[in-house]
Amino acid sequence: MQFEKKELKKKSENLSDWYTDVILKAELADYAPVKGTMVIRPYGYALWEKVQEIFNGMMRTRGVENAYFPLFIPHSLLEKEKEHVEGFSPELALVTIAGGEKLKDPLVIRPTSETIMYAMYAKWVHSWRDLPVLINQWCNVVRWEKRTYLFLRTTEFLWQEGHTVHATEEEAIDMVMTAQDWYRQILEDYLAIPVYQGTKSSTEKFAGAKTTYSNEALMPDGKALQSATSHNLGQNFSKVFDITFQTKEGKMDHGWQTSWGLSTRALGGLFLIHGDDNGVILPPKIAPIQLVIMPIKKKDGDAKVLLARCEEIRETLTNSGVRVKVDGREEPSVGRRFNEWEVKGVPIRLEIGPRELEADTIVLVRRDTGEKVTAPRKEIITSVQKLLEDIQTSLFEKAKKFRDDNTRDAVSYDEFKKIMSTTRGFIRAFWCEDAACEAAIKEETKASTRLLPMNAKKETGVCVHCGKGAVHCWLFAQSY
Amino acid sequence: MQFEKKELKKKSENLSDWYTDVILKAELADYAPVKGTMVIRPYGYALWEKVQEIFNGMMRTRGVENAYFPLFIPHSLLEKEKEHVEGFSPELALVTIAGGEKLKDPLVIRPTSETIMYAMYAKWVHSWRDLPVLINQWCNVVRWEKRTYLFLRTTEFLWQEGHTVHATEEEAIDMVMTAQDWYRQILEDYLAIPVYQGTKSSTEKFAGAKTTYSNEALMPDGKALQSATSHNLGQNFSKVFDITFQTKEGKMDHGWQTSWGLSTRALGGLFLIHGDDNGVILPPKIAPIQLVIMPIKKKDGDAKVLLARCEEIRETLTNSGVRVKVDGREEPSVGRRFNEWEVKGVPIRLEIGPRELEADTIVLVRRDTGEKVTAPRKEIITSVQKLLEDIQTSLFEKAKKFRDDNTRDAVSYDEFKKIMSTTRGFIRAFWCEDAACEAAIKEETKASTRLLPMNAKKETGVCVHCGKGAVHCWLFAQSY
Repeated sequence: MQFEKKELKKKSENLSDWYTDVILKAELADYAPVKGTMVIRPYGYALWEKVQEIFNGMMRTRGVENAYFPLFIPHSLLEKEKEHVEGFSPELALVTIAGGEKLKDPLVIRPTSETIMYAMYAKWVHSWRDLPVLINQWCNVVRWEKRTYLFLRTTEFLWQEGHTVHATEEEAIDMVMTAQDWYRQILEDYLAIPVYQGTKSSTEKFAGAKTTYSNEALMPDGKALQSATSHNLGQNFSKVFDITFQTKEGKMDHGWQTSWGLSTRALGGLFLIHGDDNGVILPPKIAPIQLVIMPIKKKDGDAKVLLARCEEIRETLTNSGVRVKVDGREEPSVGRRFNEWEVKGVPIRLEIGPRELEADTIVLVRRDTGEKVTAPRKEIITSVQKLLEDIQTSLFEKAKKFRDDNTRDAVSYDEFKKIMSTTRGFIRAFWCEDAACEAAIKEETKASTRLLPMNAKKETGVCVHCGKGAVHCWLFAQSY
Repeated sequence: MQFEKKELKKKSENLSDWYTDVILKAELADYAPVKGTMVIRPYGYALWEKVQEIFNGMMRTRGVENAYFPLFIPHSLLEKEKEHVEGFSPELALVTIAGGEKLKDPLVIRPTSETIMYAMYAKWVHSWRDLPVLINQWCNVVRWEKRTYLFLRTTEFLWQEGHTVHATEEEAIDMVMTAQDWYRQILEDYLAIPVYQGTKSSTEKFAGAKTTYSNEALMPDGKALQSATSHNLGQNFSKVFDITFQTKEGKMDHGWQTSWGLSTRALGGLFLIHGDDNGVILPPKIAPIQLVIMPIKKKDGDAKVLLARCEEIRETLTNSGVRVKVDGREEPSVGRRFNEWEVKGVPIRLEIGPRELEADTIVLVRRDTGEKVTAPRKEIITSVQKLLEDIQTSLFEKAKKFRDDNTRDAVSYDEFKKIMSTTRGFIRAFWCEDAACEAAIKEETKASTRLLPMNAKKETGVCVHCGKGAVHCWLFAQSY
């Protein structure tokens, strides 16, 4: 990596250019030869592996197991659930030639795996003893997109998709709620992305779902990012795929199903929210490298002693569970290397030179605030751990404050339009729940319904657009 | 799972039918709707996750990092390396329609990722400082096959592919040798599959490689299974993809490359080798469940006390690192449940009933030999750990003895033909290294050259087929 800090685009000036620029310069991802696709480079992929590790741990507590289903879905299978195929048709990629021959039936590359998984579930489920089915898969999916936005919108992306079958709807709803809670934890507690949770409108829900639950985050430009969704599928799919089971009482019933997914898109949200003019900022809990040790050599100093001390510190911190890297390179210059680690968003830089060696101290520099503290080496573990916790909390709180400050009530449609044409952000407003009204609002303000918040009380009000009676305040926003 | 032991096909009678039967009944995998594809079910996928965990640990010791490259490769990229495209063309799957439109340039679904990765490497590598590039990816690849053989031959399969670039050929060769050693460890020490290691002939080597190194195992029907390969790519790809770097001395050079892959195919080898008429047998080091605890309830016994004891044992063993499951189900019958765990190949069954409760003992039953031992409960940890080690060693030794017993020297071509038409197995024979001779042998005996063993001495002999001078004994076998 060879660049000067001044070459970086400014986040404050052009969010979109800055975003692309820092992702490329931080070596998180790169554009690939096929339009719409990208490469996730090792530093970016390490973040995804961390998400996988955390989420696998959560799923294990509930007995959800990983498996792998094929990439190819016969078009006829996809057509079984009418809403589902209509929702996905415009985005499909089709294999028509294979092994040198034209295929009789084109194969769809999975845009999501409900249909292929449920065709198998129908084979496997016969009795209440076979339930619940609790299966997840980590895989690539393809949804054709014309414009690429690294991580946020690519033709192929990586995700996990959990697909379960239960004996009762209560159990299925409980599963969806559990998945929603896992997503909240991943997004808020690890990625430091505050989210609103709630249900989608009929227009915005997943094609084929009874109810879709979403996690919506606010980006710095005031647009919402849908960051993970969970679906109560009811018996919609089990009826068309014939997933039937004999109940304990000897009757036949269709299974109650759920599906839920989190993709590499969430990482895009992370980069957008926490970064600054110097690059991305990674929340400590998810950062592949939490602390980089920089020996500051001076001409008159003893480099060997300095490097030995750095190794000692690395070992101490590694043993206490901190993910550490020593940057002992001879070149580029110290200043340039500072920039490199800043653009990559490593939460803490630890500096140590002859002066610190002498005083038996270390210097810790926070990536998020730039704050610099000198600490006794003896207290290094507690100092570093505390700082990592502070950074994690502070990133979340800062993002939450921005989100809260940019969540506004709109009583009149004029107010609604004014907000959407200036600051944007989330708007809380009464809506009559008529799809025509929703479409008109979207057409006129680019804002769509994002969700009806969880546990929203029934209220009495009038629709912000048409003035008819409305019983719920919905959240609106423009979105990615 | 509802079946009687007697319903299982016999391994001794028809290996191929038995194989398919036990894989389906052990719920390791299932046939998927699209011909040539399969589903890896949770029990089978857990084995693959174990392989991933072990191999990731090995790669980390050498600084190899995981990343993710796109599924889609432009056909033009694939064509850059002539041998490479010729080797893969017959097996390609092509996307010709996407997003509702016919694509101008069809996209190839990756059969392997040399071309797409090296197009990126060319962008990233400029100086000796950028080397070595040490990247691996875990992904799905597609090679069109007409006949499916679960795990062993499927249109889509999962694998890891490591792709590295080095400043010198020595470093590249060292990387290939390291990868080969990792594969030997995975195959022999974990999967208990003994392998011969060596180099492939020009005909059998990877399309585009300078040298291909292989790991060949022997299956019970006397056929060889190529279980993992590593390639010294020399500068073949770096020249066509223009991966150039400035050396320390300021000159320009092309990178020296390697690639190496291990796929879910290796699991097929595992099932074929170790199974018996009662099902698969999983080597303890890789088994998702190493020990199943079966409470044997008697009418007059106290079920609560028995189950509490089972839980206690589960905890003790889990805490000492054993992967344990308690099967406390009320149905099906104990006998049927014994069969279930046998077909799934769980290494140890621990039985405990009123008698053992009384005597404070446990009964341990080995899956591989059926041997039953009673042990004091106090010594449970050492007894179980020793038994797991014994089973692991014994599975390997048994497979090795079979492999060694079925590796024969053939001095004359008559002898060669006789072996291949009866016992099969590996044949060690002189070969003149002429491709025409190799083709004739394959045509006449179905046996191909599998490899020239590592460190094979130069000898003086005559080709087993044409009688011309030959300097090396090669290993021949029919293969999967």
